[in-house]
Amino acid sequence: MLALAYLGFIVAGAVLLWLPVSHHGTVTLNEAVFTSTSAVTVTGLILSDTGATFTGFGQGVIALLIQLGGLGLMTFAVLVLSALGIPVGMPQRLILREDLNQTSVSNLTVLVRIILIVALTCEALGALLLGFVFVPEYGWNGVWQAVFHAVSAFNNAGFALHPDSLSHWVGNPLVNLVIPALFILGGIGFIVVGDLYQKRRWRTLTLHSKLMIAGTAVLIVWGTLGFAVLEWTNPATLGPLETGTKLWASWFQGVTPRTAGFNTVDIGGMHDSTTLLTMTLMLVGGGSTSTAGGIKVTTLCVLLLATIAFFRRRSTLHAFGRSLGLNEVMKVLALSMVSVLLLMSAIFLVSISHDGEFLDLAFEAVSAFGTVGLSRGATGDLDGFGQAVIIAVMFVGRVGPLTLGFFLATHGTPRVRYPAGQIYLG
Amino acid sequence: MLALAYLGFIVAGAVLLWLPVSHHGTVTLNEAVFTSTSAVTVTGLILSDTGATFTGFGQGVIALLIQLGGLGLMTFAVLVLSALGIPVGMPQRLILREDLNQTSVSNLTVLVRIILIVALTCEALGALLLGFVFVPEYGWNGVWQAVFHAVSAFNNAGFALHPDSLSHWVGNPLVNLVIPALFILGGIGFIVVGDLYQKRRWRTLTLHSKLMIAGTAVLIVWGTLGFAVLEWTNPATLGPLETGTKLWASWFQGVTPRTAGFNTVDIGGMHDSTTLLTMTLMLVGGGSTSTAGGIKVTTLCVLLLATIAFFRRRSTLHAFGRSLGLNEVMKVLALSMVSVLLLMSAIFLVSISHDGEFLDLAFEAVSAFGTVGLSRGATGDLDGFGQAVIIAVMFVGRVGPLTLGFFLATHGTPRVRYPAGQIYLG
Ligand SMILES: [K+]
Ligand SMILES: [K+]
Repeated sequence: MLALAYLGFIVAGAVLLWLPVSHHGTVTLNEAVFTSTSAVTVTGLILSDTGATFTGFGQGVIALLIQLGGLGLMTFAVLVLSALGIPVGMPQRLILREDLNQTSVSNLTVLVRIILIVALTCEALGALLLGFVFVPEYGWNGVWQAVFHAVSAFNNAGFALHPDSLSHWVGNPLVNLVIPALFILGGIGFIVVGDLYQKRRWRTLTLHSKLMIAGTAVLIVWGTLGFAVLEWTNPATLGPLETGTKLWASWFQGVTPRTAGFNTVDIGGMHDSTTLLTMTLMLVGGGSTSTAGGIKVTTLCVLLLATIAFFRRRSTLHAFGRSLGLNEVMKVLALSMVSVLLLMSAIFLVSISHDGEFLDLAFEAVSAFGTVGLSRGATGDLDGFGQAVIIAVMFVGRVGPLTLGFFLATHGTPRVRYPAGQIYLG
Repeated sequence: MLALAYLGFIVAGAVLLWLPVSHHGTVTLNEAVFTSTSAVTVTGLILSDTGATFTGFGQGVIALLIQLGGLGLMTFAVLVLSALGIPVGMPQRLILREDLNQTSVSNLTVLVRIILIVALTCEALGALLLGFVFVPEYGWNGVWQAVFHAVSAFNNAGFALHPDSLSHWVGNPLVNLVIPALFILGGIGFIVVGDLYQKRRWRTLTLHSKLMIAGTAVLIVWGTLGFAVLEWTNPATLGPLETGTKLWASWFQGVTPRTAGFNTVDIGGMHDSTTLLTMTLMLVGGGSTSTAGGIKVTTLCVLLLATIAFFRRRSTLHAFGRSLGLNEVMKVLALSMVSVLLLMSAIFLVSISHDGEFLDLAFEAVSAFGTVGLSRGATGDLDGFGQAVIIAVMFVGRVGPLTLGFFLATHGTPRVRYPAGQIYLG
C-alpha cells in the first residue's frame, strides 16, 4: 500500500519535473524519474544541480515531493503501529484522553493532524531562523531558500539549492545549528519526540526513547570525533579551514551521514578510512517512525545487546532495566540479513555495469540504501542500468527491507513439528 | 589454550625461519614472524616468494608449521566437541564399539590417531598423484613439490612454491582435480567425513552433514558459474585462455576462495565485481572441525534459514526435516556480529595506515580473516603497522571470533529479572 502510494508520487513527480515549465535547458525523462524518486524517498542523490537546473516551479515540486515522501512515511509508520494497538507515545495518550469514545478512524485523523502540526511548526521555525542567513545574502530569493532548506532538512532529504550543498556556510553557526537540529529532530522518530514532549524526565521515558537518545548521542560523538581526527590535516577537506570552522565542519559531517545528506565539505575528498566510517553511519541511519532511513539505531542496539548477551551466556537481552524478547532478535537478524544481501547485490550489479573506483560505487549504493544522499560523485558517471539500480535501492531503502521481505515470503504455517537437529558452527 | 599453543608454534616457527639455514639472502624478523603466522594459521598470505626465498630446510619448516596448524585445529575442535559429550560421527562410534571400557583420555588418543591417519593417508595419496605432474617436470625436486603442495592443500594453507601459485598448471586436469579434492576434503570438516564414511547414504546422514554438503555444493556451483560469467572475456584473467582451460580455471577459482587460497589465474586482474564475489566466498569459508576458516557454511545456512523463518512467521528454523533452536540463532548472530565488527575495524585500520586501492585492502583483510591467502598484491605494500593488523586478523580468524568473544566477555549470571520493554525496529 505504502509502496503503491510512493510509486504514484514518483510517477506524478517525474511527469511534473519533465514539463518544460519545471526546468531550464533539457531534462531527460530518465533524469526526471531519478530526481523524482530521490525526492519522494528523501534521499537527495542528484544527477543535476537542483538550484541551476530547475525553475522556481520545479523546485516547488521537489519540495512538495519531499514533504509528501518524508511525512507520508512518518505518518504511515505511526498509523501502522497504532492500528496494531501499540502505544505510540504522547499523541495517542492525548487522543485517548480527549476523545475516548471516538472511532479509530477519527483517532487516526487526529494523529495525522498532530504529526502535520509538529512538522510544519518545526519547518516554519527552521525557515524563520535560516532566513537570517539567506535573506541578507539573496534578498527575496533568500526567503524561498530558507523554506526549501528547512523542508529538506526536517524531512532528512538533503536536497540543497547549491551545487556544493551547504559548503558556502561551512563556518556559519546558525546554519550549523538549525539544519542539524531539524534533521536530528525529524530523524529521531515521532515516538521519541512525543515521549519526550510528554514526560520530559529521563527516568520516566520508554525503553525505545532511552535507546534512541543514548544511541544517537553515542553515534553523533563517534561520527564527529572520527571525522575530526581522520580529516584534520586533509587538504581536500578540513586542512585549509580555521580551527573553529574545522570543529563546525566535523560536527556537521559527523551528524549528516545518519540520513540527512547535506554536506559542508567535499565528500569526495575524504580519506578512504573516513569514507568507510561515513558508510557505517549511513547504514545505521535514524529512528523508526521518522523521516530517516537505514537499518535504524534500535536495530544496531539490539544486534550489539544480543551479541553481548550471548557471550555472557544470558538468554535475554536487557538495557536500562528492561528486557527484550528473542522475537526482537529474530526480526533484527532478518532485517540485517535482507539489508546486507540487498546492498551486496546492488554493489555487485553497479560494479558490473561500471568499472569505476570501487569505494565510490559502494558509497553511492549505501547512500541510496540509507536514503542519505551523500555522494562522492559516482552517481553522475553511472550508465542507465547503474542509475536504475540506484533508483531501485532508494525505493527499497525507503519502503523498508522488511516490507520487501514480507512481500517475497510465502506465508504458511508449519504443519508438522520437526525433531531437533544438531549442527556445529564457528 | 589453543591460542597459547598457536602462539608457541608461531614464535618457534619465526625463529627457525629467521635462521640463515632457512633462507637465501636476507629475511627480516618481521618477515619471519609474518610467514610463520601465515603458515600456522594456514592462511597463505606471503611477503616473499616461498619457493625462491626459503631453502629446502625453510620450506620443510613451513610445511611442518602448516601441518601442526591445520591438524592442530581440526583435532582440537573434535576434542572439544567430544569432551562436551557431543557425538562427532564415525570415530567416536568406532571407539565406543571397540573399547567400550576405556577411559576418556585413551578414547581421545584413539580419536587423534584416527584424525592423523585420515590426514596422512589423504596427503600421501595426493602427493602420489601430484607426483605424476611434478616429477616429470622437476625430477627429484618434484617429489618434494608434490609432498609440499599436498600438505598445503589438505590443510587449506594455500602456500605454493611458485611466485604465481599454480598458474603454470591452469589447464592441467590432474592438478585441477587433486588439489581441490584435497582442500575440499580438508575443509568440509572431520565430522562430515566421518559421517559419510560411516553411513554412505544421504537419507541417514546427520543434519549437519546434509547442510554442509548441500551448502558446499551450492557455493561451489555459484562460485564457478559466477567466475566464468564475469571473467570470460577479461584479458587479465580468462580472456587469453582456450575454452577448456577457461572452464578448468573457473572451477579452480570458484572453489579456492573458500579457504584454500591457491590460484591459477591472476587474482589482481579480476574485475571489481568478481573480487566482491570472491570476498563473500572467502568470508563464508568451510566447515567446522576442518582446516578451513571463515564464518563457516553452517553459519551462513542458519542466517538464511532464520531470515526465511522470520518472514514466514515461524518461530523455529528447519531444514531437511529437522528443527534448530533459537540458541543456534543467537550464536550465529553473535559470531556474525563479532566477525563483521572485527573485519570493519581491520579494514578501517589498514586503510588509515595505507592510502592504496580500497578494494585491494579490503580483499587482503577478508582473505586474512578467512585464512584464505588469496591476494591482490596489497599485502606487500603495507607498512609495519598494516602488516601487524593482518597478522592479528589471521590469528583471530584462525583461533575463532567466538573464542575471542568469550575471552572478552565478563561472565556473570543475571541477578534480577527485568520487565519486558518495547522497542521499534526497521
Ligand atoms: K537524505
Ligand atoms: K589458506
